[in-house]
Amino acid sequence: MRRVLVIGIGAGDPGHVTMQAVAALNAADVFFVMDKGAAKHELVRLRREICERYIEDTSYRIVEVRDPERDRSAPDYAAAVAAWRSARAEVWEELIARELGGDGCGAFLVWGDPALYDSTIAVLGEVAARGRVAFEFEVIPGISSVQALAAAHRVALNRIGEPIEITTGRRLREKVGDGGGGDVVVMLDAGTAFDSVEDGDTEIYWGAYVGTEHEILVAGKLRDVAEEIVRLRAEARERHGWIMDVYLLRRSSRGG
Amino acid sequence: MRRVLVIGIGAGDPGHVTMQAVAALNAADVFFVMDKGAAKHELVRLRREICERYIEDTSYRIVEVRDPERDRSAPDYAAAVAAWRSARAEVWEELIARELGGDGCGAFLVWGDPALYDSTIAVLGEVAARGRVAFEFEVIPGISSVQALAAAHRVALNRIGEPIEITTGRRLREKVGDGGGGDVVVMLDAGTAFDSVEDGDTEIYWGAYVGTEHEILVAGKLRDVAEEIVRLRAEARERHGWIMDVYLLRRSSRGG
Repeated sequence: MRRVLVIGIGAGDPGHVTMQAVAALNAADVFFVMDKGAAKHELVRLRREICERYIEDTSYRIVEVRDPERDRSAPDYAAAVAAWRSARAEVWEELIARELGGDGCGAFLVWGDPALYDSTIAVLGEVAARGRVAFEFEVIPGISSVQALAAAHRVALNRIGEPIEITTGRRLREKVGDGGGGDVVVMLDAGTAFDSVEDGDTEIYWGAYVGTEHEILVAGKLRDVAEEIVRLRAEARERHGWIMDVYLLRRSSRGG
Repeated sequence: MRRVLVIGIGAGDPGHVTMQAVAALNAADVFFVMDKGAAKHELVRLRREICERYIEDTSYRIVEVRDPERDRSAPDYAAAVAAWRSARAEVWEELIARELGGDGCGAFLVWGDPALYDSTIAVLGEVAARGRVAFEFEVIPGISSVQALAAAHRVALNRIGEPIEITTGRRLREKVGDGGGGDVVVMLDAGTAFDSVEDGDTEIYWGAYVGTEHEILVAGKLRDVAEEIVRLRAEARERHGWIMDVYLLRRSSRGG
């Protein structure tokens, strides 16, 4: 039976790779790769470093996957992403059938954790549900940027017995003004949605390129550090050509 | 300078240990250990397996720490936990001063991720703030049971662009009836708080002893599998003398 491994490889630090991921990296014959955009060069370099450090038999192949375009102008975000997933499922189905022999093992390397704001699991689930190519798939969890952020700041994500929400920059902007307190981690923020939070006493623990040599960390009350973060973020984005950041907002009122 | 490492060692599977954690395990001279209760025997065994597998120089020491009792009858949960943390900070302060030489390195091994429902970071922060013993401390993130659960079920924690909440059994019971949709991960549930969810269409992805050889997984709609989980949970608890479980509830209405 063909096998496909979805391997979480951590937030960028090769030290985030788990022993389970090392075993999975060594089990794969083929790696499917889809990096693109401004971050591509850096991500390819980091991934190559991980493969070279941990894979013993270097006879593996790397297959670059043409990733269908997502319609970024569509008004319904979820529907656009769902359509994009189906388009990817078609491409991946062909890929698995073509690149993996009857007992071949392929792998997708996922930054962070495959269960958090990543579509690899969903797309493979869709390929499996289509039923045209038979394969088993397995998921190996990885250290997410959220965890790397908390570790770097030496802070817990939750307060005692309190909940924690993980959300997107888009949702944070929508929810502000709801009177909700509590702690929230924001991922996938293309901008600086924290500047829409009105309570200046909110503490922010912010990080960019967390876990890599370019890591930048800032913590403090929003009223004291928000401007600094906006400035650092713009500078870093200019310097690297891309940015990936994540932050914890600890609101002064608690959630309910 | 004394160093203290807070090392996340994963949810139970020795394969969850990261390369960074392996390096940290090998850097420590002393391990501070506080396991207790019904799970103690099993947790000690798992931890010993991790140490034996990954630590090369076996000259390290293990120091058992007397953990102050928490007042479980106190009406204010957060205040009781905060008081308990301060009592622990006193004990740990003495421990660090006594057990670590001027350039000694001690380590606390934390199941799961130190940033998620664990107080080690907070207690060490309190010891540092007291200022009576000088030390540096560092946090190494680990795979949490939440991630091991999602990987085992091959499911993403969030739906497309939607938030995810991580909370406790206690909070889930309090919040039910709030009309909130969305997806929620429940940790630290001493009972079966999912049975307070009224919407039988809610999907549950449940796991006990996730990542260990005793792992049990059940997934389905609450109306179909809730009774089975209650039964399996009671049987497993009886058999092992303790249980540690975690679950994702995917409510049929989405969050807002």
